[in-house]
Parts: sequence; structure tokens; C-alpha cells
Amino acid sequence: MMSTTLNMETTAQELSKAFMASYPLKSARHLERMEAAEAAGLLEIQPIHVVAGVWKYLPPGTTDAIFSQLDEQTASNLIAFLDSHLAIALLGRLEDDKRVHLLSRLKESQPSLVSEYQDLLRFPPDSAARMMTTKVQAFSADLTVADALAILRRNPGTAQDVLYLLDNHQQLVGEVPLADLVSAQPASGLATISQPVRTTLEALDDKELVTEKFEGYRTRAIPVLDTQGQLVGSIGYFEVYQSTKEDLASDMQTMVGVSKEEKALSSSWFAVTRRLPWLQINLLTAFAAAAVVGAFEGLIAEVTALAILLPVAAGQSGNAGAQALAVTMRGLTLREITTRHWNRVLLKEILAGALNGVAIALTCAVGVYLWSESVGLALVIALAMVLSLIIACGAGALVPIMLKRLGLDPAQSSSIVLTTITDIAGFMSFLGIAMLLSDMLPKG
Amino acid sequence: MMSTTLNMETTAQELSKAFMASYPLKSARHLERMEAAEAAGLLEIQPIHVVAGVWKYLPPGTTDAIFSQLDEQTASNLIAFLDSHLAIALLGRLEDDKRVHLLSRLKESQPSLVSEYQDLLRFPPDSAARMMTTKVQAFSADLTVADALAILRRNPGTAQDVLYLLDNHQQLVGEVPLADLVSAQPASGLATISQPVRTTLEALDDKELVTEKFEGYRTRAIPVLDTQGQLVGSIGYFEVYQSTKEDLASDMQTMVGVSKEEKALSSSWFAVTRRLPWLQINLLTAFAAAAVVGAFEGLIAEVTALAILLPVAAGQSGNAGAQALAVTMRGLTLREITTRHWNRVLLKEILAGALNGVAIALTCAVGVYLWSESVGLALVIALAMVLSLIIACGAGALVPIMLKRLGLDPAQSSSIVLTTITDIAGFMSFLGIAMLLSDMLPKG
Repeated sequence: MMSTTLNMETTAQELSKAFMASYPLKSARHLERMEAAEAAGLLEIQPIHVVAGVWKYLPPGTTDAIFSQLDEQTASNLIAFLDSHLAIALLGRLEDDKRVHLLSRLKESQPSLVSEYQDLLRFPPDSAARMMTTKVQAFSADLTVADALAILRRNPGTAQDVLYLLDNHQQLVGEVPLADLVSAQPASGLATISQPVRTTLEALDDKELVTEKFEGYRTRAIPVLDTQGQLVGSIGYFEVYQSTKEDLASDMQTMVGVSKEEKALSSSWFAVTRRLPWLQINLLTAFAAAAVVGAFEGLIAEVTALAILLPVAAGQSGNAGAQALAVTMRGLTLREITTRHWNRVLLKEILAGALNGVAIALTCAVGVYLWSESVGLALVIALAMVLSLIIACGAGALVPIMLKRLGLDPAQSSSIVLTTITDIAGFMSFLGIAMLLSDMLPKG
Repeated sequence: MMSTTLNMETTAQELSKAFMASYPLKSARHLERMEAAEAAGLLEIQPIHVVAGVWKYLPPGTTDAIFSQLDEQTASNLIAFLDSHLAIALLGRLEDDKRVHLLSRLKESQPSLVSEYQDLLRFPPDSAARMMTTKVQAFSADLTVADALAILRRNPGTAQDVLYLLDNHQQLVGEVPLADLVSAQPASGLATISQPVRTTLEALDDKELVTEKFEGYRTRAIPVLDTQGQLVGSIGYFEVYQSTKEDLASDMQTMVGVSKEEKALSSSWFAVTRRLPWLQINLLTAFAAAAVVGAFEGLIAEVTALAILLPVAAGQSGNAGAQALAVTMRGLTLREITTRHWNRVLLKEILAGALNGVAIALTCAVGVYLWSESVGLALVIALAMVLSLIIACGAGALVPIMLKRLGLDPAQSSSIVLTTITDIAGFMSFLGIAMLLSDMLPKG
């Protein structure tokens, strides 16, 4: 009995080994759905090149969870085996003491790799250096096409889409896409078929510049140079894709005052420290809105129906403003508009606000009349809707454009500025018009 | 005088021709900053291959604006010269009558191209067919490495990163990355060095599946097959990059009830038709919130200070909820979490809500006490903050996860569901606690 169980387990292990080696992508999808500890257990029995093959198909959240469950031996083997930018990303997200421990363990067998990683980890998290792979293929510009092909044939499986050419001082002087290499005459010099390097990045350059250059030049990979102008790595299209996707997904966060660093499974304490400042600022703006309501205290005491309709007044202008903001932000993000289009966007939004305002005013007036049987109250809410939606839509368009013009990040601050404006516009127009038409309102 | 002006103009034109031909990217950045009519004028005097060279570096909003200003001759030449997916994208965004006119004009000189474009335009805007380029390099699987290299050498400048292999029935049977081709022995058959095609798409597949496959396989290009399994095109990394970026930027829109199709410079009428339904639905939820306030009308008539503080109660819970929603949405978007993490995310958010609630309660209580000099009112708002922030944060985490679990798009509907919950939670906890502690409140 005992030995049957053992045999069955061994067979299961053999099967899982064969499956992971042959279907790394499918394996990754299975592992993603498992508990981290179980996934780690399955990976530990694989040869390390199989683990690395599966690893690159796992999403970042899952890799962190599984990595923390791996035994030390597998963890340090994996770090040594992964492509540098993946290893660095993983190390960068580890807690400090775990990282130090892991690297000191790895140092015994791989001292030069550890010192390379330590150098890379010194770069800021948002720098080009942290996104690059250090595996680049560079050739001396003196070689011929035939030389290069011979070298590539001696090292099958290592070729990348673009070869870089260095002069005798190891400076980058050109690039040869493989597409050009294969169509060139074998006797030609690499230098004669090379293209000038279209663009380069420096190791310390910011992530945003990486995205900008990728979008501008659309190349598969951008070479990265150190401060001496020596080639140290390259950033491929997939790293830019992931980083842009992360940035845009976290724009939703910064718009409501959550830091980009917070993830869905960050600790509650981390969430509190990052969100609280914005909530406190927002409290100030809420008090400002309350002050507007307070200015009309006498009227509200007389006409309590006004208090009941306050949520409607602020809610609709807040929503209409958020809609205008979202469309304008998307335009700026995708460069469909620039700040110099402000007048066209403003005109569009004011007109949209007026039309939507009239439509909402009608529904709202009917609803309020049916509830209160007061023509005056229905008239007040209708007029307030038109006025506050015009202001809200106009502000939704102008706020992000003005912030951008001032050099600020509209994704960072536009939401708080806009909410303040729409709250105050909503209350002011509703209570202000009520004050003007107070003779028509039902008292008590 | 006359002739000097003429000469100067000609020289300026010559200069601009030389500049655009040599620096397509820089030229694109200049054109982007000009008025569309002026940019069109500069492009019309260029040879068409130079226009096409610059064109691919222009962002979509700018291309549409400039294209509408080009003279007919240049416009139809450009459509004929551009890469198919760029031409189709441009044609797809034209008004119907303009597109028909342009294609019928082009049909005289290029009948087969026009019928290809008309076929492609029949595919839905969000399909793989509309993202693909029809320029793919396919070879018979019978050829040798040396044959393929010889063909590529005869057609310099056409090579792509991946070659596709077809069998004698024109079915796709494998792919050969150039990287493998260059490192292979010339006498080997292409079939022996080819890899199985890792993944394919069908022409009618949805954009979301394109993104999913690109993220899963990370290949530079994914081949697209028609319903007979014949290779009709391929989708490159840059097209996926742009489409994902557009999708994420428009997620911000759908969250507040704006359709993905609306752009910053869409017409006001378009904006109204797309935004109004959501504003009307939202009016219903605002009335629901108003009903909650209405249930406490008697208390508010007695204690008008409560009406003044309503914006604070709803504003803070709305913000805290939006923060939790943004973080959870980002986690789902980047696959850092799946729906089965609901309990961990919920726990985190409830704890964060409680801690932030206590902190906000303290500031709020101090502010309200200084203003009202009522301990009771300060106590009511403080207790309400803690309770409503816990509910808001919990709901911000649960709503998108539940919507996703139900197969709905959380980016589409989570914001409206959440606002309803946070508004009602904010008013209920504030006015409910006020009712319980009404003996402690200042009357009048």
C-alpha cells in the first residue's frame, strides 16, 4: 500500500514535470489559480530552466505570492536563472531583509551576478535601468555580414531582433535589424548595412521618457547607455507594454488620491498612510461645501424640502463633471487633444452640459412635482440642474487642461479640484435660485 | 520682387521636402503642433512615400484632423500607400459618404486594393481583422534556409521578424523567427528549424482576445487566419499596445457612464446621447438618497445643523469608497488579484476603512465642535464617519469583484452601484446616529 502511494506520487510528479516543460503557458494559467503554497510545491520539483520558462508567463501579483513560498534553494536558483529585468523586479519588491539574505546566499556561487544585481537595484524603481534586460547582442562594426552570421550560428537560440554595432571605444555607432542582416550580401561590412541608432535611453531616464520614446519610434527595443555612453542593456516592447498598462491602471487610483504603489493586496496600514492625507484634504473641501449650505440655513429651516433635495443637486453636477473630466483626460492621455484645444473642448462641454441639463431638469422637475406638489420647488430644481450641469461640464473640461498647462499631472489632482467645484456649484445654484424664488416655495 | 518671393518659397519647399524625408519623426512632432489645414498644405507637396513615412508617427486624433484637410488626390494616394491596418483605421473613422466617395475615386486606378479594403471594412471595428496588417511573409515549408535567405536578399527591406510556413494546401504549419533563420545551417529545411505556431487569431476574434493572447504569449506578432484557416494577416506588438492603451484610457469613461466611442472632440450632440441615459439612471439613485434624508425630515427641521453637515457625511464616504474601488479595479485589470481573493481584499478594506474612519472622525469632530460648540453633534459626525467609511471601503472592494463574478464588466457599472451604496450609507449612518443621540443635539 505504502509503495503504491509512493509510486503514484512519483508518476504524478513525472507527469507534472513533462507537462510544465512542454506547456509553460498552460502551466502558468493553472498555477495562477492555485494557492501560492501549492504552486510553490509543484515548482520546487522542476528543473530550474522549466521553472523560469513558466515564470515569465505569471502575472506580477502571482509571482510575488509564489516566490515568498519557495524554498531557499529554488528561490536563489530562480533569481540566478531569470532574465535580469525579471530578477530585479522580483528582488525589488521583496522586503529588505529577505532580499539581503537571498543575495548573500547567492553570492557564494555567483559573486559577479550578485554584484550586477546590486548595481541595478541601486537605480530608482521608475528608471530605465530597472526595465531593461542586460542581454544585448553587440558586435564590432568591423565585422562582415558573414562573420556575424557565423557567430550567430555558433550560438543558436541567442539571437535577438536587433544587433548593435560598437566602435573600437565600445561606443554604440549603429544597429542592424536581423531583417536587414538576412537580406544583405555576406561579404558586406556590418557598418555598411547598419542604420544610425534611432534613439537611446540613459540608465537613469524616467519610465515616462521610456514610454514616450517607444511611442515615438515604435521600435522593438531601445538600447540603454550608461553615463559613459556604453551600452548596458535594452528595453523591449513587452516591458514597455506592461509598464504603460500599469501606469494607466494606476491613473484611476491617483485620480481619487490613492498612491500608485498601493495594490489590491497591500496591507491595510499601507493603504491608510497613503489614502488618509487626501481624505483629510477632502474633508476641508466638504466643509467648504457645508459652509455654502450653512449660508442658507435660515431658508432651509423654513423649507426643509430643500435639505432633502440637496443630495440630488450635488449628485447630478458631480456626475456630469466626472463624465466631462473622464473624456478630457482620455483625450490628453491618448494625445487626441493638446492643451491648445482648450477652447473647442470647453465649448463642446458647455453645450453638452446645457443640453443634458435641460433633459435632466425635465425628469427632475416631474419627479419633484409629483413628490412635493409644489410648482415652485420643481422650477427651482429644474433651473438649478441646467445651471449646475453647465458649470460642472465646463469645469470637467478646463480643470485637467489647466493643470496640464501648469505642468502638474492632471491624473494626480484633477478629481479633488473638480469635486470641490461641482459640490459648490451644485449647492450654490440650487439654494441660490431657491432664495430668489423663495416666495414660490412651500414653507414648513 | 515677385520672383524673389517665388524663389524663396521654392527654396522653403525644397527644404521642407528634404527635412520630412530625412526626419519623419521630428516632422510628425512639428505637424502635430500646427493647425490641421497648414499641416495638410505642407504634406500635399511631398512625394507620397514621404507622407506615409511621417504619417505613421502621428497620433490618431491628429491624423483624422489633417486627413480631412488633404486634397482629394493626396488623400487617395495616401490611402493606397499606407499599411493596410492604418488605411483601414483611417477609412473606418471617416463619415460614410466621404469614405464611399474616396474609395470610388481610388477604384479607377486600384480596383483590387479597393475590394480588399472593402472586405476588411466589413469586419466589426473591434475585430482582429481591423487591427492586422495584410503584409505577412509566408514561405513554403519545402524550402531550405538557403532558399529563404536568397529570396529575402532579392527583396531587401521587406523582411519581418517572423516568417510563416505554409504546407501545400496553404495551411499555416509553423513559424521561423528570423533569429532562428540566421543561426541555422543553410542546407537545413525550413520545416526542420520551424517552431509550431504558438497561437493564432481568427479575423472575427474580438479585440479583448487579441490582448489576452498577446499578454499570454508575448510574441512580436500573432498570425490571423480566415474561416478556412488560411493566413490573411498578422497583428504586431505596436497595434496591441495602442489598442490596450485606448481601452484602459476609456475605462475611466465607462466607469462614469460615458461610452468608449466618445472622444474629447466628439460633437456635443454625440456626448449628450451617450451620457444622458446614465445621468437619468443616476437621478433615480439620487432620489433614493433623498428619500433616506426625507425619512429624517422631522429631525432635520428641528436640528438644521444636520442639513448643513449632509455634504460632509456623503462626501467622505463617497471618496473613501472610490479609493477602495480604484485599487480593487487596478488589481483586477492587471490580474494582481482574481475574484477568489475577495475575502482578503474585503478584510483589508474594512480594516483600512475603520482606521481611516477613526482618523477622519477625530478631525471632523474637532471641526464640528469648533463650529457648533455642541459635543453631541461632534460625537454624531465622528461615529457616522467610522461606520460609513467601513461600509464604503468594504463596498468599494466587493462591488467590482461581484460584478466580475457575475460576468459583467466592472469598469462599466461599478461606479453607479458604488455611489448609490456610499450615498445611502453616508446619510443613513449620519442621520440614524443623530436620531439615536437626538437628546444631545442643539435644537433650532
